[in-house]
Amino acid sequence: MAKGSKLLQLTGRFPMHHGGFLQEPVIAYETWGTLSEHADNAILLFGGLSPSAHASSSPQNPASGWWEDMIGAGLPLDTDQFFIVCINSLGSCFGSTGPASVDPATGERYRLNFPALTLEDVAAGGYEVLKHLAIERLHTVIGCSMGGMSALAFCTLYPNAAHGLILISSAARALPFAIAVRSLQREMIQKDPKWLGGNYDPADPPLVGQRLARKLGMITYRSAAEWQQRFGRERIAGEGDPATPFYGDFAVESYLEAQANKFTGQFDPNCYLYLSRASDLFDLAEHGGSLQAGFAKMRLQRALVVGVTSDILFPLQQQRELALGLENNVSRVRFEALDCIKGHDSFLADMDAFRPVVSRYFDD
Amino acid sequence: MAKGSKLLQLTGRFPMHHGGFLQEPVIAYETWGTLSEHADNAILLFGGLSPSAHASSSPQNPASGWWEDMIGAGLPLDTDQFFIVCINSLGSCFGSTGPASVDPATGERYRLNFPALTLEDVAAGGYEVLKHLAIERLHTVIGCSMGGMSALAFCTLYPNAAHGLILISSAARALPFAIAVRSLQREMIQKDPKWLGGNYDPADPPLVGQRLARKLGMITYRSAAEWQQRFGRERIAGEGDPATPFYGDFAVESYLEAQANKFTGQFDPNCYLYLSRASDLFDLAEHGGSLQAGFAKMRLQRALVVGVTSDILFPLQQQRELALGLENNVSRVRFEALDCIKGHDSFLADMDAFRPVVSRYFDD
Repeated sequence: MAKGSKLLQLTGRFPMHHGGFLQEPVIAYETWGTLSEHADNAILLFGGLSPSAHASSSPQNPASGWWEDMIGAGLPLDTDQFFIVCINSLGSCFGSTGPASVDPATGERYRLNFPALTLEDVAAGGYEVLKHLAIERLHTVIGCSMGGMSALAFCTLYPNAAHGLILISSAARALPFAIAVRSLQREMIQKDPKWLGGNYDPADPPLVGQRLARKLGMITYRSAAEWQQRFGRERIAGEGDPATPFYGDFAVESYLEAQANKFTGQFDPNCYLYLSRASDLFDLAEHGGSLQAGFAKMRLQRALVVGVTSDILFPLQQQRELALGLENNVSRVRFEALDCIKGHDSFLADMDAFRPVVSRYFDD
Repeated sequence: MAKGSKLLQLTGRFPMHHGGFLQEPVIAYETWGTLSEHADNAILLFGGLSPSAHASSSPQNPASGWWEDMIGAGLPLDTDQFFIVCINSLGSCFGSTGPASVDPATGERYRLNFPALTLEDVAAGGYEVLKHLAIERLHTVIGCSMGGMSALAFCTLYPNAAHGLILISSAARALPFAIAVRSLQREMIQKDPKWLGGNYDPADPPLVGQRLARKLGMITYRSAAEWQQRFGRERIAGEGDPATPFYGDFAVESYLEAQANKFTGQFDPNCYLYLSRASDLFDLAEHGGSLQAGFAKMRLQRALVVGVTSDILFPLQQQRELALGLENNVSRVRFEALDCIKGHDSFLADMDAFRPVVSRYFDD
């Protein structure tokens, strides 16, 4: 769990969208800023697959958050003006209940006994936090990447819970390319002999599979153009394992190695599998039978959709589809195509491009 | 070995470009059509990483070849007119000497004792076949994908050995994106416990790693747009392993599974590792210190460069770079950007688009 996260302990059964339930799950969240008297200045933030609720530093946890340059006094998510809530997705492993948590019914970790997870469940977890905080209607709900699909689920399931919506580098549903990538990442983990059908030793997890999956992730999170600028064909003397004739001395190989080392060990493999699959399964069209029907369920006044030209995982055409879909039902929709080079990760790595766009939404 | 391949047994030491040598290696090749009296109608064909020399069916081997719709009477590589030679790359496992072959010095398979392999070595293998066939100057050398880099090496090392050059979906050197993909594929194989540092049992090879690598290959060989058209979010009832909640019932997952099953078992893992690394290592700029110097070494009269808009592994910008580089030194260069949807594999899967372009070159 991220230091400084608040924990909301739910009572009773939490029904899951695809069947089954969780007994008294916990939702972890963090907040920044102050809720106004009329509780009308709240922003709810759904993150991507891997981050915790620690989107920004706080007195309780001064470590940088994953959107450090977006949240704070004078920043686009201005803590002098707004009350910002970021949740750790249900199914994750940073405080919220997930497959790595202990099932109170058995006293054992859920592992693969965790019920099928959907982003509708993640949205429901966020909604519980809002009820707990006595927030009836959000100023804006924001979702980045997978979190954008959680935000779409949220606006569909709770049509009156948000006034505005910001979707960043997301989609109404995954393309088969993204499904193929995530499916292969899951297979890498499941084929690691240490996965043991989900019953791995938490002290000795399937790190090899997790590292491979993370490397494939990085290949799809960034862009070929960025790597050409950044690495080209540069070689790093002394890198790699000279015991094989295939050792990785290209700078880009060394970079992937460093990225894999940074990520793995932090994230529970079963939680990853559940959230990854949930990303494949989400389809706005399942809310009513078509994308159009899904969009029609929402009761939003405003929306902003932002995407990046170099994103191969959630490509720009999917942002355009979101904007067009929203335009039929929302009076004010803005679509921004940013010409960032850092691919899908631009919303984390190219804040100078994203800040003005998000600022403009809140200044309006 | 592919049935019907001819084997050229070289004598003495075959020096390798990055040092070391092979003792009396074999180069496998196939031919179609008849060599003219003046030996001036020969075409040499270098294929991609995985195929054998069996580019087209023949009386000796009636099975379809990998370029069946390009080679034959009345086809662009017209066997009534040309004598076509396709070689199996040195380092491969379809007749030519590679890491899976027995080292005559030890009586054991080379495995990782095979010297470092480069595409210059592959080119030298092709040149030996031409010498054997008493062909002094080719009408045209053709290279597809990795074979395009072998063809560039060939034209640089043997400047007078070809009159014309056709490069299809290739590059002057790999981009870091392609290096990252191939490096990860190699790691998947090497991390399979059955790889055993290259000393796997040939009857029980690291199939799990090979299958993962093949799936990643397919993700980069095709295109997101093709899969969206072809699969969308279609589900296949009864597919996947229902024992896990992450089972692969999306049509695209089923497709990858079928592709992995088709490929693995055929290709030797160590051969794959050597050829994959050779693809990363090739850099035309190493021939003279710059790309410009590399192109300047060639003595070509004509060139055709073909690429595909949806290729993410050898993107169109790399074909443009090839065409521009050749234009400085070759009087007639044609560049064709094909709007095919099937990605890098279009040169194998979209023959209706490629045939007219190749025909036009030979009709000129």
